[in-house]
Amino acid sequence: MNTFGKIFRLTSFGESHGKGIGGIIDGCPAGLELDIRLIQKDLARRKPGQSKITTQRKEPDQVEFLSGVFEGKTQGTPIAFAIWNKDQHSKDYNDLKDVFRPSHADYTYIQKYGTRDYRGGGRSSARETIARVVAGAIAKQVLVKVGVYVQAFVSSVGEIKLNKSYLDLDLNKTEENIVRCPDLETANKMISRIEEAAKDNDTVGGVITGVAKGVPTGWGEPVFNKLHADLGFAMIGINAVKGFEYGSGFEGTKLSGSKHNDVFIRTEEVVRTKTNNSGGIQGGISNGEDIYFNVAFKPIATLLKEQQTIDKDNNEVTINPKGRHDPCVLPRAVPIVEAMAALVLVDHFLLSKLNSI
Amino acid sequence: MNTFGKIFRLTSFGESHGKGIGGIIDGCPAGLELDIRLIQKDLARRKPGQSKITTQRKEPDQVEFLSGVFEGKTQGTPIAFAIWNKDQHSKDYNDLKDVFRPSHADYTYIQKYGTRDYRGGGRSSARETIARVVAGAIAKQVLVKVGVYVQAFVSSVGEIKLNKSYLDLDLNKTEENIVRCPDLETANKMISRIEEAAKDNDTVGGVITGVAKGVPTGWGEPVFNKLHADLGFAMIGINAVKGFEYGSGFEGTKLSGSKHNDVFIRTEEVVRTKTNNSGGIQGGISNGEDIYFNVAFKPIATLLKEQQTIDKDNNEVTINPKGRHDPCVLPRAVPIVEAMAALVLVDHFLLSKLNSI
Amino acid sequence: MNTFGKIFRLTSFGESHGKGIGGIIDGCPAGLELDIRLIQKDLARRKPGQSKITTQRKEPDQVEFLSGVFEGKTQGTPIAFAIWNKDQHSKDYNDLKDVFRPSHADYTYIQKYGTRDYRGGGRSSARETIARVVAGAIAKQVLVKVGVYVQAFVSSVGEIKLNKSYLDLDLNKTEENIVRCPDLETANKMISRIEEAAKDNDTVGGVITGVAKGVPTGWGEPVFNKLHADLGFAMIGINAVKGFEYGSGFEGTKLSGSKHNDVFIRTEEVVRTKTNNSGGIQGGISNGEDIYFNVAFKPIATLLKEQQTIDKDNNEVTINPKGRHDPCVLPRAVPIVEAMAALVLVDHFLLSKLNSI
Amino acid sequence: MNTFGKIFRLTSFGESHGKGIGGIIDGCPAGLELDIRLIQKDLARRKPGQSKITTQRKEPDQVEFLSGVFEGKTQGTPIAFAIWNKDQHSKDYNDLKDVFRPSHADYTYIQKYGTRDYRGGGRSSARETIARVVAGAIAKQVLVKVGVYVQAFVSSVGEIKLNKSYLDLDLNKTEENIVRCPDLETANKMISRIEEAAKDNDTVGGVITGVAKGVPTGWGEPVFNKLHADLGFAMIGINAVKGFEYGSGFEGTKLSGSKHNDVFIRTEEVVRTKTNNSGGIQGGISNGEDIYFNVAFKPIATLLKEQQTIDKDNNEVTINPKGRHDPCVLPRAVPIVEAMAALVLVDHFLLSKLNSI
Repeated sequence: MNTFGKIFRLTSFGESHGKGIGGIIDGCPAGLELDIRLIQKDLARRKPGQSKITTQRKEPDQVEFLSGVFEGKTQGTPIAFAIWNKDQHSKDYNDLKDVFRPSHADYTYIQKYGTRDYRGGGRSSARETIARVVAGAIAKQVLVKVGVYVQAFVSSVGEIKLNKSYLDLDLNKTEENIVRCPDLETANKMISRIEEAAKDNDTVGGVITGVAKGVPTGWGEPVFNKLHADLGFAMIGINAVKGFEYGSGFEGTKLSGSKHNDVFIRTEEVVRTKTNNSGGIQGGISNGEDIYFNVAFKPIATLLKEQQTIDKDNNEVTINPKGRHDPCVLPRAVPIVEAMAALVLVDHFLLSKLNSI
Repeated sequence: MNTFGKIFRLTSFGESHGKGIGGIIDGCPAGLELDIRLIQKDLARRKPGQSKITTQRKEPDQVEFLSGVFEGKTQGTPIAFAIWNKDQHSKDYNDLKDVFRPSHADYTYIQKYGTRDYRGGGRSSARETIARVVAGAIAKQVLVKVGVYVQAFVSSVGEIKLNKSYLDLDLNKTEENIVRCPDLETANKMISRIEEAAKDNDTVGGVITGVAKGVPTGWGEPVFNKLHADLGFAMIGINAVKGFEYGSGFEGTKLSGSKHNDVFIRTEEVVRTKTNNSGGIQGGISNGEDIYFNVAFKPIATLLKEQQTIDKDNNEVTINPKGRHDPCVLPRAVPIVEAMAALVLVDHFLLSKLNSI
Repeated sequence: MNTFGKIFRLTSFGESHGKGIGGIIDGCPAGLELDIRLIQKDLARRKPGQSKITTQRKEPDQVEFLSGVFEGKTQGTPIAFAIWNKDQHSKDYNDLKDVFRPSHADYTYIQKYGTRDYRGGGRSSARETIARVVAGAIAKQVLVKVGVYVQAFVSSVGEIKLNKSYLDLDLNKTEENIVRCPDLETANKMISRIEEAAKDNDTVGGVITGVAKGVPTGWGEPVFNKLHADLGFAMIGINAVKGFEYGSGFEGTKLSGSKHNDVFIRTEEVVRTKTNNSGGIQGGISNGEDIYFNVAFKPIATLLKEQQTIDKDNNEVTINPKGRHDPCVLPRAVPIVEAMAALVLVDHFLLSKLNSI
Repeated sequence: MNTFGKIFRLTSFGESHGKGIGGIIDGCPAGLELDIRLIQKDLARRKPGQSKITTQRKEPDQVEFLSGVFEGKTQGTPIAFAIWNKDQHSKDYNDLKDVFRPSHADYTYIQKYGTRDYRGGGRSSARETIARVVAGAIAKQVLVKVGVYVQAFVSSVGEIKLNKSYLDLDLNKTEENIVRCPDLETANKMISRIEEAAKDNDTVGGVITGVAKGVPTGWGEPVFNKLHADLGFAMIGINAVKGFEYGSGFEGTKLSGSKHNDVFIRTEEVVRTKTNNSGGIQGGISNGEDIYFNVAFKPIATLLKEQQTIDKDNNEVTINPKGRHDPCVLPRAVPIVEAMAALVLVDHFLLSKLNSI
């Protein structure tokens, strides 16, 4: 169950303190000239140690391709890749070997598998998402060929919320600050909020908004694999995610149908809608409007402060974790949200080739 | 792409105004004594015409099993079933043949397939969910054998919200009123709200809360198929759903980690947590606590009032739909939410048999 | 595990003496005008009672479509269909309820599922192949659109073997005799051989040869899902099949490489090979030459003569089956072989759309 | 389409002259103590340069595990592994860059993908089977825990055939000679035959027989995924394979049903059959008897002698391949056959856990 996607499939592997993280991408069309720099750029956006508000673990996070690329081009064959771990401090975890950290996967892994790699969270570490970012960066390169662009940004941190629609923002400004919020004023507040949490040895959650532009009509499968259902599945499967909504979302439940409906309008070239509460998807299929959605991230469970818990022998213990941790997952999760959206969209692009003979 | 599930798989078929709706369940374990009454009970909860606040289409919605059940027991072979349509008024849709109803799937189906069954929404009709309810009702019967119970209820209609946790409610009261809210006072407000919408020939949305009790530890796959990701995928794929959150959800993003973490505690028999912001799932795997989640439903797009739109030749037209429609999908969607949750859980129950040799 | 195919997927259901046999085809492209007569024609070729050398069970085997076809055209939505059983003589099987017939699935079903539908073999009956013939007949209609034709014929019955290559035969003559061998002289010998077996209350096996013409280059997946591996899988999964070979097959193992290799030659328009030991497939991918293969069928296990066996309580018993049975499965299996080949080919046709952006 | 298996899944990657060959095994149960020596032992049996009758390419073929194994035990998480290429002579292939070698995949790859890695056959090289051997060797270690053993041996080379049933042979003697035939006299003839082919710069084909002992009753899925269909699919997908038969196979088609049927007999403990024409499988499900089958391998296409062919511009050219090649694939394919059989069996072992609640 470590494979994502139906046609363009990522199978990921690796643990936080093992040899590395990587994956195999199967189903990537042949003949794509891979731009490695774009992949590294997204990896750099996800990388630890990139700013004062992220963990200080230092990883080069350089991707190595093991197969499937020849003379710079994809071959239609499986693209295997690895990012080798360099800066593990596995000793930091010796004390935690037999302890169940609160709101972590320690206890549930043991219950499921009877064994676990306790070093740095092992497979449950968010370091696993590197594989998603690599695959997503390749998916983006396919999508660009058909005019589709995916962008994400931080829209809330704790109670600090960006009170603007993505339509009123210049998304190109997202990368201009370390928290990845395209509104500078709000960004500064968010940064302060994260620093405050860090000072308290505490953590803080938030929301990331994703937008896909240029998706043509006709992508998505109408019943179980509605385009938004696949997007939701992709997002909710990211570490620390607690919720997903698209288009009008939870707020839209309060509207009456007559306010919520998106009226179709005539334009010279294409059919458009006046409003976009549908978030670009109707009946599970894209209608040509922008796709947009929100993803809720909980505050990270690893606190650098004392907490009560129990160990595997059911003794009460006090833990006081060492290690280098993020006070807030949001800034580094932006490229992960984009990657997962790109994986879903590239899959539905390929599936859309099968609609008719 | 009309198959749901990995081990216990439902493949559904059918259109609103075709011969019927049905499906094939493949992977149901052999030897289960099927209680048909329980299936019909859930179908009755989803049935049109069940109360004054639902559509008045009259369908018996009687399930007929076509295979896979012999002498009352499942055989391990595919269980095919159908619910035959009886009360279609297909003529109601003749006027809509070439028109794209706002926020419906008319336009996107044509864009995807180049053709569509326009009678009553065809495949995009929520009538398709009957197949899910049948399969879910069977899944529930498997789950009961391992002590797992799934229940859902309406927790908001429009702006009317049930301000209580499921823990403070008697969920057995859910079926005591026609809106399916276990708090009578709130239920009455909701019913009035729906009647008001109906009077306006308008519609209203809301939220359904689902709860699964008795799920043992160790269900769920840690990376892409986290238990909550599969639940989210299942819920978001239901017609009219705009969002999903589990445990602390979107609100939880505002908490600090030290408030959000669920501290493990000693009990005599099992490991428990003091709080349950995790919603019973950690690292994608169940931890033995209750699983709970919210599902957002938009107001139904079909209004019995005049609306502007365009037709397939890009002419501006005015529609004024006839037909029999729900002013609010929520009361009838409760068994659908339960069914989809049961399908996910039964799948992970079966998958959990594969954790070790 | 009752689903066949990757993109064009058949999920089948039904038992020999239940309500009927049917299936759901998911992934059939939209917009195909279905010719029902062609489907019925293939069903008639598979039908019991079609000639003096087949079982005399009388079934109309009329297909009823339950969904997915509207105004004569496929809609891209699931195509459900059923063939209702009419002429079951279930009482014929009462005596066999607790008995394990030799070389049948009675014993293994009980061992696997702990229960079984003993009437007429239940799910293990070759009556299940009706669903394959319907789906295959639709697949053929898609294939014709891209110039691909699939044909099969009986090439041996018992020790009577057709000693000609398909290249030296007029395959249009296949349907001119009841055994479905395109060489009349051999056909008559085969018919006599089957009649002889029937007179002995015995059965006889044989080989069916399949040919696909017009398959363009580039179909097939090079590693596990080689085009011939998928064909082999499809054929070996047919009831009573014991072997599969393609191109030069088992005989080819005796050749030296220099004799076996197919030399490429220049033609004005396309690349061809001088010989075709490769059977039209190289490295798992079609090369534009004819695809041809052999399928071995064992003699049917049901004999209308006394046999020793045991029952479920491990008592020695003698059985003397009643019922109406085929002395030789080959003539009726010809359309099944074609159907399974068509299902594999249509799948790889659709997959080939994904080779490049 | 580079994934094999349903529950225990191998996704393979790599090219003959790229960085290496490897894969990810997903779905291996947790808690298995991996014996790396047994994996290396099978790799050594497949390794080039192992004897005078194989290619002299020198590869250590040492497996490196990249994830999923911790403190010597499988973790239930993906097991990634690689075997790094060491002794590629890529220059040997420069002359073949634009040429289509007869009966190779050069032409079909270009037709499918529009591009290909021409060095040493790239992905179509039999070097890819290393990944299968590693995964199969792990599958064997799971199977041993449930008493199942898989063994293969060479039963014919060219026209030299081992005329004994596996029942009359001591399969432990298989590894005592370099051709892997358990009958020494026949083995010597086979070795001479291969040496003769090598002297002629030619190649020779043959047959490998596989046997699985200890498979309990109840493995296999009765319709499309019959246990023998999955075995056949696995075998036919091995490079150079042209045919598969199990139990009585093609010869069995000549028997009458009364001779072919396997009569059930009483034993004190388990149900047995007097004969085993069924090859241990009835109705697609194992019956507890030995499973046995034959796999036909064509003579390898790479000849070290002059051959006519064409290039990508449709010019007639003469090739005279250099490089180091096997005159006969059979001896090295024995562990590959075992590996693929083990992968199928471990999958059905795991699936059999799902038969009932």
